[in-house]
Amino acid sequence: VRVLIPPFPGLTLPQEGSDALTVDRWDGTGDPPDMAEIELWVPPFGFGDHATVIASMGRLRVVQLLTVGYDDVTVPAPLTLCNAVGLHDGAVAEWVLAAILASLRELPAWILDQRRGELDRFETATLAGATVLLIGHGGIGREIERRLAGFDAELIRVAAHARPGVHATEELPRLLPQADVVVLAVPLTDATRGLVGVDFLAALPDGALVVNIARGAVVDQPALETELASGRLRAALDVATPDPLPPGAALRDLRNVLYTPHLSAVTRSIFPRLSRLIGEQATRLAAGEALVNVVSGSDRPPRRADQPTPVKLRSSEVP
Amino acid sequence: VRVLIPPFPGLTLPQEGSDALTVDRWDGTGDPPDMAEIELWVPPFGFGDHATVIASMGRLRVVQLLTVGYDDVTVPAPLTLCNAVGLHDGAVAEWVLAAILASLRELPAWILDQRRGELDRFETATLAGATVLLIGHGGIGREIERRLAGFDAELIRVAAHARPGVHATEELPRLLPQADVVVLAVPLTDATRGLVGVDFLAALPDGALVVNIARGAVVDQPALETELASGRLRAALDVATPDPLPPGAALRDLRNVLYTPHLSAVTRSIFPRLSRLIGEQATRLAAGEALVNVVSGSDRPPRRADQPTPVKLRSSEVP
Repeated sequence: VRVLIPPFPGLTLPQEGSDALTVDRWDGTGDPPDMAEIELWVPPFGFGDHATVIASMGRLRVVQLLTVGYDDVTVPAPLTLCNAVGLHDGAVAEWVLAAILASLRELPAWILDQRRGELDRFETATLAGATVLLIGHGGIGREIERRLAGFDAELIRVAAHARPGVHATEELPRLLPQADVVVLAVPLTDATRGLVGVDFLAALPDGALVVNIARGAVVDQPALETELASGRLRAALDVATPDPLPPGAALRDLRNVLYTPHLSAVTRSIFPRLSRLIGEQATRLAAGEALVNVVSGSDRPPRRADQPTPVKLRSSEVP
Repeated sequence: VRVLIPPFPGLTLPQEGSDALTVDRWDGTGDPPDMAEIELWVPPFGFGDHATVIASMGRLRVVQLLTVGYDDVTVPAPLTLCNAVGLHDGAVAEWVLAAILASLRELPAWILDQRRGELDRFETATLAGATVLLIGHGGIGREIERRLAGFDAELIRVAAHARPGVHATEELPRLLPQADVVVLAVPLTDATRGLVGVDFLAALPDGALVVNIARGAVVDQPALETELASGRLRAALDVATPDPLPPGAALRDLRNVLYTPHLSAVTRSIFPRLSRLIGEQATRLAAGEALVNVVSGSDRPPRRADQPTPVKLRSSEVP
């Protein structure tokens, strides 16, 4: 099997160097390697125009994403698209707790002002006794809940459909006024696009904290910016529109906003975990076994050796 | 009973206004009220020279502290000294988790640089998989442990004396090289003063995080500053020497130091809890019942009505 992966220092497949596997590396910019023989492609984080590159890979069978979200990628049949579901849940949940605690305990104010020493001591909020509204109860939601357990907070779970212990999205108008913290941990779908709009935000109490580790488009960003600029709400955002935000963006310049550029999953343990996943997929592909984390296409993608080799893409044509 | 408490907006005793209780308020600066009749005194946070004020209170029976630590206060017999043990454990433990997570996930770098947008994404450490060495296993230590439980960290407990699951301080030379995070949660005693010195710090691995919510004097501060200035270690400090650090202090100006001026217990829930404690002590004192949280003197301090009324202290004599 021939695979194309990003040239991250820690990304090394377990079986690399064996006869069964050929590994090419490409960061998505500059000259691409010869793509005609690639069967498994792993696009780098934040890659833009998948379609153009896929069209240049005549034997491509599988696109393996490094992310959980796949709202920005479409692959044509008979290709198989796989994501990295579960792989980042713990790291993202840890970022959520870090961001909630830092925001409630006002660490940004001290980090920005500790040099001057002009800030008076003042009482902060606490997570103890706060009500956390967790919207989305998949793998990341469950990992957030596990970490919240020791903090004496009140947890309200919301998901697309009600089930025991979990409220339906339709109940949000009644639930939002109780929330000290709202965590957005939903996939981006037609149902969640723009979920957090003017009415959603207006229903939150003064001082509530909006945490987004889902996708920027889950939020009506101008509406959120209005509530943040006035100081009525605060936010901890790992995603935004566009993602990442450009330098100088208004959201980066607000003291009541903690912003990181899609970093919640980017920890030192990310590459060993991704290496294992990609290595396993390559082994399964070579053996004709079912792939894991399939989100579209067949879990045993057929060989495409009968297809004509396409024209090699020139680097100037790659976005 | 006549009590003197600090004039904090949220500090109101439950039985205030009743005939049984007279409440005076004084912030420790400027003109003191008539102190001759005070039986229960609650000094404000950070009060300096207790002895001079106590000498002016001829009927004083009890000094009730707002803090857990009482290393900086001595009261002469037959007075009773009480602390606020247990009252701040949860808030301090929450600060410890906030500070560990913010430091490991590099939130200070993003908070300082998010405006400029010049910082590249980079992999951070995680609490998951990290080894946390918790030195001190009293109430605060147990609350830290409860909050750590969901984070997949390795916990090593250390206390003055070994017991099942807890190592003795003598074992530190063997344990320190394993620590990604060291949390200092010990009382300041002869045994812990200067515990964290040159050898202790040198035994820590590169990049280790030192968290201090104990007392500044537990640390040899020049030794710590050397390790921090070189960038080899990092720190999250809620206490230091002096406490709080003056504006412009070197420790405030290091990017690898998260500093708050003794703020870990100062949350919005502090005043209801302190009000209940002081109210309960006043009720017990009036009824001749045993006081709680006694750290020196009798738990049923005798009336001192037979003593001569001392000269009233002029404000210029109060530090």
